[in-house]
Amino acid sequence: MNQPDQFTFDGLFSRNVVEQRMMGMGLGRKPKYDFAISYPDPSSLPLQGLMTALQQALAEEGPDLALYLSAQGYGPLREFIAAKLARDRNLHVTSDEIMLTGGAGQAIHVTLESLVDTGDVVLTDDYTYSGALHQMRRFQAEIRGVPTDSEGVLPDALESAIRQLPREGKRAKLFYTVPTFQNPQGWTMSLERRKVLVGLAQKYGMPILEDDCYADLRYDGQDVPSLYTLDGAGHVIYVSSFSKTIAPGMRAGYMTAAPALLKRAMAAKSGGPVPLFVTLAIHRFVTDGLASHIEEINDIQRQRRDAMLESLEEHFTGGATWLRPEGGLSVWVKFPEGTDATAVREKIFEATNAGYSTGPNFAPDRSSGKNFIRLSFGFNTPAEIREGMKLLADAFRREGVLR
Amino acid sequence: MNQPDQFTFDGLFSRNVVEQRMMGMGLGRKPKYDFAISYPDPSSLPLQGLMTALQQALAEEGPDLALYLSAQGYGPLREFIAAKLARDRNLHVTSDEIMLTGGAGQAIHVTLESLVDTGDVVLTDDYTYSGALHQMRRFQAEIRGVPTDSEGVLPDALESAIRQLPREGKRAKLFYTVPTFQNPQGWTMSLERRKVLVGLAQKYGMPILEDDCYADLRYDGQDVPSLYTLDGAGHVIYVSSFSKTIAPGMRAGYMTAAPALLKRAMAAKSGGPVPLFVTLAIHRFVTDGLASHIEEINDIQRQRRDAMLESLEEHFTGGATWLRPEGGLSVWVKFPEGTDATAVREKIFEATNAGYSTGPNFAPDRSSGKNFIRLSFGFNTPAEIREGMKLLADAFRREGVLR
Repeated sequence: MNQPDQFTFDGLFSRNVVEQRMMGMGLGRKPKYDFAISYPDPSSLPLQGLMTALQQALAEEGPDLALYLSAQGYGPLREFIAAKLARDRNLHVTSDEIMLTGGAGQAIHVTLESLVDTGDVVLTDDYTYSGALHQMRRFQAEIRGVPTDSEGVLPDALESAIRQLPREGKRAKLFYTVPTFQNPQGWTMSLERRKVLVGLAQKYGMPILEDDCYADLRYDGQDVPSLYTLDGAGHVIYVSSFSKTIAPGMRAGYMTAAPALLKRAMAAKSGGPVPLFVTLAIHRFVTDGLASHIEEINDIQRQRRDAMLESLEEHFTGGATWLRPEGGLSVWVKFPEGTDATAVREKIFEATNAGYSTGPNFAPDRSSGKNFIRLSFGFNTPAEIREGMKLLADAFRREGVLR
Repeated sequence: MNQPDQFTFDGLFSRNVVEQRMMGMGLGRKPKYDFAISYPDPSSLPLQGLMTALQQALAEEGPDLALYLSAQGYGPLREFIAAKLARDRNLHVTSDEIMLTGGAGQAIHVTLESLVDTGDVVLTDDYTYSGALHQMRRFQAEIRGVPTDSEGVLPDALESAIRQLPREGKRAKLFYTVPTFQNPQGWTMSLERRKVLVGLAQKYGMPILEDDCYADLRYDGQDVPSLYTLDGAGHVIYVSSFSKTIAPGMRAGYMTAAPALLKRAMAAKSGGPVPLFVTLAIHRFVTDGLASHIEEINDIQRQRRDAMLESLEEHFTGGATWLRPEGGLSVWVKFPEGTDATAVREKIFEATNAGYSTGPNFAPDRSSGKNFIRLSFGFNTPAEIREGMKLLADAFRREGVLR
């Protein structure tokens, strides 16, 4: 029997759809020293706490798994988040103004889908979260990075970027930033800088997408108010998640924004709510257990950050520079201009079994920043970090990246 | 202190975004006799089985919750699904050709997003799943319903609808159907009709979106091959889910399609994979427990269907007609032309505490079918069904809908 010709869908795809492409992170296998991905520590996940929480919740509300619930997500968890944001971030919204999402990533997606048409301009920090860039590209935004220093985005540069747009018949649809423990750069935007940024948003009618997903992971220093709180006038879309404080495998993020935006983001979210099976477990766990769990993991991660910083001090001094992050999961390392830490990544992985993320992965143009690497310290123990960093330093030296 | 003016996002929203709107199902509170929604039975959910499964899986793979995994979803569950489809539906794909989704709903969403631009024509059964219609409207498709009878879509009518399109400079982007235990109509498309439908898809280069999410809920009669299997040439996008066989609250669906489509559907899926916390529990549960669980719930649901059919026989004979479904979760009831069961829904709910779905909810034009109702029987016990159906019949008689 002849097989019929395979159908190709020629001429049928929608204009805006893209093919799935790798994000350039893959090394084929997982490195032993995995400094490439911002994982939380696998050995301190609250697995038992989640099991106990789920057991209790299913005994109380298990039959509700039979229901089809609103895409906004489980109400009691939204109430917990509203109370947490008020307490921890001085950010005051009702649970009705919160939507649960598949990680912060889906909150970023539905925000971009609500605002961005093909060719629209989105502004970002000069190097920023690769998953957000990936979504911006999917919606065919024109992404323009704005220079930053150790206190965050440079206000003059941002204002020029905004003012340039009307000359091109355009308008900034959004400024995306991770103001606290910026990914990948590690800085926290200063209060002064935040005030200026919010002032620009108000002056130019520009929404800000504030990705605050690392804010709970503070190892020292003082909290800085969120952009959402400083604004108070609906310009800021605030997203965060439990991926870093509980586990990425829960896919539980959340967002809050002005009703006009939130209603559209809800329509763009598909597949129903974050599964009740997940939100029941999280809700019962966080109600009693989140604060002490965060304290526990922050102790662990502080030691890992310190091991990473001490290793940098020991092996990279003179050949590279970096900022000491007060929280988060990674350190951003700069080699001298002209060196290329990107081209040697796979070779170094083969030689050392250590992985790192490369600068272009975080660059709006996909190519800048070849002399930068991001080193994440959440996954390995302090001893492994010291071991892996020594191997990495030796390998970078052999390749002429580190001198 | 003056509050700053609230930002309105005027002129900033993307062209295709819509506001979340209610789907017209809400009655304010949940009816005692809830024939409106196709729930599975809340009291026979496999809660203990899922807990045991999760406990075992977390002991074995819990630390993997720390990882960021591919949006395609947990490999071992995709392998289980590939084996299940081969065994139950004679449908042969590899696990690489399967993507897990947030219920069948997200599979429908990403398929539509991959194919539909504003104004594109999508063909459907004359009355069909309201969630799919909702997604089609979201992508601003022009939805054209095609007449059906008790064996499914009428081939001549479908071919005319397809042939009409080039005269308008258009082409069918998709034919969406629920061929097995059609929602809401309850028919199962006959083998002969399926062959003709697949032939039309091949002749005209038209993709078919086959929503097979009720196929496991067969109470009597013989399985009919899936459209995907009959085609074998990549025209059919096949979606299904565990919502009806495990629980909607897991949000675990899946799809398979030709690689060209699947790659785009993967890019359109956001928020990462279905949570590992969910897929670990499902995988361990289904491996040993799915077949016997389906047997158990089908015994329960067969009795409920029979209670519903007997109640119709007893109270509605002469005043309405209906089809006996061999599976699924609902019965589609037709009152005489000119009667209106839609306008009286809330009044009847107040009088009886019984809910039903109205015809226009399933109509592409949102208004046809006022003399149809869908009665779902998964939620209530047989005794409650008999009780509620008696109340409903009396109320419909008082309103002149039933004579």
